[in-house]
Amino acid sequence: MSSSSVVDTCKFENLQVDIEKNDKDVVRSQWVLNAPDPPSPCRVVVDSMRKSFSNFREKISSFSDQSCGTLLLSGLQVVFPIFVWGRNYTVAKFRNDFLAGLTIASLCIPQSIGYATLANLAPQYGLYTSVVPPLIYAVMGTSREIAIGPVAVVSLLLSSMVQKLIDPFTDPIGYTKLIFLATLFAGIFQTAFGLFRLGFLVDFLSHASIVGFVAGAAIVIGLQQLKGLFGITHFTTKTDIISVIKAVWEALHNPWNPRNFILGGSFLAFILTTRFLGKRKKNFFWFASISPLVSVILSTLVVYLTRADKYGVKIVKHVKGGLNPSSIHQLDFNNPHVADVAKIGLIVAVVALTESIAVGRSFASIKGYQLDGNKEMMSIGFTNIIGSLTSCYVATGSFSRTAVNYAAGCESLVSNIVMAVTVLISLQFLTKLLYYTPIAIIASVILSALPGLIDINEAYKIWKVDKLDFLACAGAFFGVLFASVEIGLLVAVVISFAKIILISIRPGTETLGKLPGTDLFCDVYQYPMAIQIPGVMILRIKSPLLCFANASFVRERIIKWVTRDDGSEDDKGNSKSTLYQLVILDTSNLVNIDTSGIASLEELYKCLSSHGKQLAIANPRWQVIHKLKVSNFVSKIGGRVYLTVEEAVAGCKNNQF
Amino acid sequence: MSSSSVVDTCKFENLQVDIEKNDKDVVRSQWVLNAPDPPSPCRVVVDSMRKSFSNFREKISSFSDQSCGTLLLSGLQVVFPIFVWGRNYTVAKFRNDFLAGLTIASLCIPQSIGYATLANLAPQYGLYTSVVPPLIYAVMGTSREIAIGPVAVVSLLLSSMVQKLIDPFTDPIGYTKLIFLATLFAGIFQTAFGLFRLGFLVDFLSHASIVGFVAGAAIVIGLQQLKGLFGITHFTTKTDIISVIKAVWEALHNPWNPRNFILGGSFLAFILTTRFLGKRKKNFFWFASISPLVSVILSTLVVYLTRADKYGVKIVKHVKGGLNPSSIHQLDFNNPHVADVAKIGLIVAVVALTESIAVGRSFASIKGYQLDGNKEMMSIGFTNIIGSLTSCYVATGSFSRTAVNYAAGCESLVSNIVMAVTVLISLQFLTKLLYYTPIAIIASVILSALPGLIDINEAYKIWKVDKLDFLACAGAFFGVLFASVEIGLLVAVVISFAKIILISIRPGTETLGKLPGTDLFCDVYQYPMAIQIPGVMILRIKSPLLCFANASFVRERIIKWVTRDDGSEDDKGNSKSTLYQLVILDTSNLVNIDTSGIASLEELYKCLSSHGKQLAIANPRWQVIHKLKVSNFVSKIGGRVYLTVEEAVAGCKNNQF
Repeated sequence: MSSSSVVDTCKFENLQVDIEKNDKDVVRSQWVLNAPDPPSPCRVVVDSMRKSFSNFREKISSFSDQSCGTLLLSGLQVVFPIFVWGRNYTVAKFRNDFLAGLTIASLCIPQSIGYATLANLAPQYGLYTSVVPPLIYAVMGTSREIAIGPVAVVSLLLSSMVQKLIDPFTDPIGYTKLIFLATLFAGIFQTAFGLFRLGFLVDFLSHASIVGFVAGAAIVIGLQQLKGLFGITHFTTKTDIISVIKAVWEALHNPWNPRNFILGGSFLAFILTTRFLGKRKKNFFWFASISPLVSVILSTLVVYLTRADKYGVKIVKHVKGGLNPSSIHQLDFNNPHVADVAKIGLIVAVVALTESIAVGRSFASIKGYQLDGNKEMMSIGFTNIIGSLTSCYVATGSFSRTAVNYAAGCESLVSNIVMAVTVLISLQFLTKLLYYTPIAIIASVILSALPGLIDINEAYKIWKVDKLDFLACAGAFFGVLFASVEIGLLVAVVISFAKIILISIRPGTETLGKLPGTDLFCDVYQYPMAIQIPGVMILRIKSPLLCFANASFVRERIIKWVTRDDGSEDDKGNSKSTLYQLVILDTSNLVNIDTSGIASLEELYKCLSSHGKQLAIANPRWQVIHKLKVSNFVSKIGGRVYLTVEEAVAGCKNNQF
Repeated sequence: MSSSSVVDTCKFENLQVDIEKNDKDVVRSQWVLNAPDPPSPCRVVVDSMRKSFSNFREKISSFSDQSCGTLLLSGLQVVFPIFVWGRNYTVAKFRNDFLAGLTIASLCIPQSIGYATLANLAPQYGLYTSVVPPLIYAVMGTSREIAIGPVAVVSLLLSSMVQKLIDPFTDPIGYTKLIFLATLFAGIFQTAFGLFRLGFLVDFLSHASIVGFVAGAAIVIGLQQLKGLFGITHFTTKTDIISVIKAVWEALHNPWNPRNFILGGSFLAFILTTRFLGKRKKNFFWFASISPLVSVILSTLVVYLTRADKYGVKIVKHVKGGLNPSSIHQLDFNNPHVADVAKIGLIVAVVALTESIAVGRSFASIKGYQLDGNKEMMSIGFTNIIGSLTSCYVATGSFSRTAVNYAAGCESLVSNIVMAVTVLISLQFLTKLLYYTPIAIIASVILSALPGLIDINEAYKIWKVDKLDFLACAGAFFGVLFASVEIGLLVAVVISFAKIILISIRPGTETLGKLPGTDLFCDVYQYPMAIQIPGVMILRIKSPLLCFANASFVRERIIKWVTRDDGSEDDKGNSKSTLYQLVILDTSNLVNIDTSGIASLEELYKCLSSHGKQLAIANPRWQVIHKLKVSNFVSKIGGRVYLTVEEAVAGCKNNQF
């Protein structure tokens, strides 16, 4: 065989390979173009509803196979998980739960009185809320650690919103009625979220904004406690930091009695010291846990023995004893504020669920089990519905008490039952003993729980990872601090969603280059080793959407780039107008496109054509290729749609150059 | 060489290749992990500002190189493009512009009177607005076809918003003052948009919502004309379809005079017939264009000769003649409504710019030149500022007159000057002749322009391509029709942005499979030929963001999928728990991730680990890999981050199986 014929054969073979490769490319391009239609939005909705329904039917039919007895048991087990875990319950477990229950009860009694005061309610309502809700949740809940009862943030939120409708000091009965109504609405909304699987609504408060919101709320709650700590009589009803500091400033510039502060301050120091020691040494843990109760008992004794109330020390005075009374007849749906109260119920429902599910999830993940969000929402919702009928206000999982419950070694929700029974006994027999309890001590107990709510480390982590997330965090924090609790929440939600919009429509394009040794095309800034192909501009749109809000910006940017160098000459004296003969748009990250986006691409194509340049699309996703086909854009650009950038470069070169 | 040694060599070579491939994969994985940090948000903002500033400085310095004379000329040419295109202006071009100018003037005079009535202003203000703004725009504008003057949608919007502040019928002077103030604010906002390059604000009204909004507004405007067409005296000030139809119904059930309707209806039929013929035959075009003016002249003559105004035909009566008076002293900034008026100015500014830029762009793209959005905004803004000082209300580019101007063969903005001069002459000498013009004819002229604003074909196209876009279109349409013009706009903007949020956070995952003959992994539904790899679950998150709003949903979905089959057995009796040993998350389309998203991935990793499964990340984008690195997620998953899905599969298999 002569050497030339060998070369010829080689050439032929190369050609063969080229042709085969081209054929393959054409076939793959057809894969893109002939993809089945994606399901339409209506279809998606219908399918998802049908799926939910068939799941439901499956469950029902799995029940119907069983006998009547097992059926009843299965039903009970679904609604009341206590029938599941209760069967394996042991005496050893009960010992742990009993201790944990007593521990949280000792923390719960002063906290309940303080939170009720924060919610502008009489002290006994806080105690009532620590009896019925924990009992209901204990039989329905799926978490094992959550301690249910009144919590600081919800108490603050509820009082700050309801007192705008009705003044708690001139009409305490009307105010209390509205609080019960709000509790009922909150419970109904929470149950509905669970039933209709709207758990995602709770996710709308982002982690970052919760961190900021809770920290801001902790400071606001702390500021509210200054009233009790200093024994101030005239205080502001506003919650923002400026009003409160002004009120404290004014009170301290009038003659005031330092006895409240001395008493409260010294016991606050005592509680904080024991907690500090408790964190250092395991042996001190129990002492730290019961130190709030010890403080209450000691200070009450001191006041009783010295009759300090005669010398200006403010005391709790009468706490109505006895079991939770019924409040069915206090729920007045003919109230003129009923629509506003429903709105308040909705906001409180979301905030309460967010706190409870966040705390439940974090301890569940430590113990390694999954929390069913929808089931949790139904349990807490039902808890609050029953609560609203038995003189309770909104209860949810408490950050501080759940942490103590876990640390005290709780095994199951039985610790909640122990706590509820303990509070019940206190209500029945011990309320008279609370008469001389100084208000400053209650304030100290609440103040001592607040530092745990301010998570500076987490805020710093958010700042490090995501500046915009930190903005939501700071917005919520300063909103709560300087405006009001609701404004803080609103700021957080608005910033969070504005961030989503900003990222989704932020216009911009990335230039892609080929990674050496691969067929991959990547951002030349992210991968500095990527090499741009001469004569071909390969672009990727930065945003995931090409829509009305960014389409014309992106179009003008590309046109500017492509036409910028026209007429000028490059280093080697060649006219630069031929610098980019082909523009390839890598649409792999484009999730969707709208009519404005398609119109923009059409204008881009027209403009490029008038400059003698080509446009090709690479790797369009399902929705995008479907819309480009339906709007005839694909046929307008001559079907130049390819599976990969590599194939687009090869395909266009074969067609043209 | 024995056959076994050949096999050994082959094996060895294969191993060699494998090792080399692995080494390469490791190197590429390092490319991903060692990417430079992306610019921080602050950095991006600073850079973009610096760029704008350096562009500006470049322009300034390019000026400073020139002599004083050329510098002045350059400056003039930038501010007044007429100095650029005016130098090539010819007599032939002027002939065309003169004819086009006269044609649009004949349409402009009756339209101006009608639109002024729509804006609850005296007729002369419409004519004033057709004199000064076109002259200013002619020297500053960059479009060649736009016909400037009062337009229907803006007139309606302005009157519907300002009449809420002050009643135009009890205090017409105060009302007119507020209109001038709103015009000034609109002009200032428009100029500011142009100066600060905020052109994207105009894009916030999506194409789809404009189609719906304009169609709805056209119907509302048409309904308002029923007052003139039927000669109704008592009419509603509301603009929604129900109020208007009720008002018309009531008026027609009282004794009414059909002469107005007969006159208006017959001339409306005449105008529509000529337009229909004009579209069919080119010869009729001129006749169609001047038919509104012919109708006005003929009907005025008829009324004057028959004294029909004595028999109940409503006429325009006195139109104040003469040049535009100054309105500087009518701008009252101490007005109590000034903040509201500024808000109205902002809304009107955006709507007016949207109309003008949309119409300008569409004709520019027909003639094949680019319209500078920012320059346009400044020109129209300056036009309105001057307008507000010379008794004009908000002017912008008109859909109907621009189309006529283009069809009449305009060559440049000189046609606007011809139109302005013609209207000026009419104002000076012919206003007395307008005394007997029937109001029904003015209503007919406006009614005849409306069908062009209702674009059913476009609405159908939107429906076909994008159902959610159509929802925005329908929302704007029905909002305008059944509520008010502002509500319609609000609905459109809210739906458009809700759509962006929905698409960005819609949770869901796609299963990927390998396309035969390639290294590519694609959605198995979009590409039915894709083959899933046994033992490996390859997922891509559907949304472009993994953030607070969808992260926990996505996490739970994946965990459910992966753990669903645990414990059960597959067809061949193997335990299915080993079915998926590896989960690969293809993050190529994930534009960003936030702290909630990262927390979610961490929980996913923990859960998978506790089931003895692995997690790997493939092809993360710049922001995503940066945040995963900063939050230590990469080190938590043992650095299992790969450039492609292919390499992730190979890498994980080599490490583990």
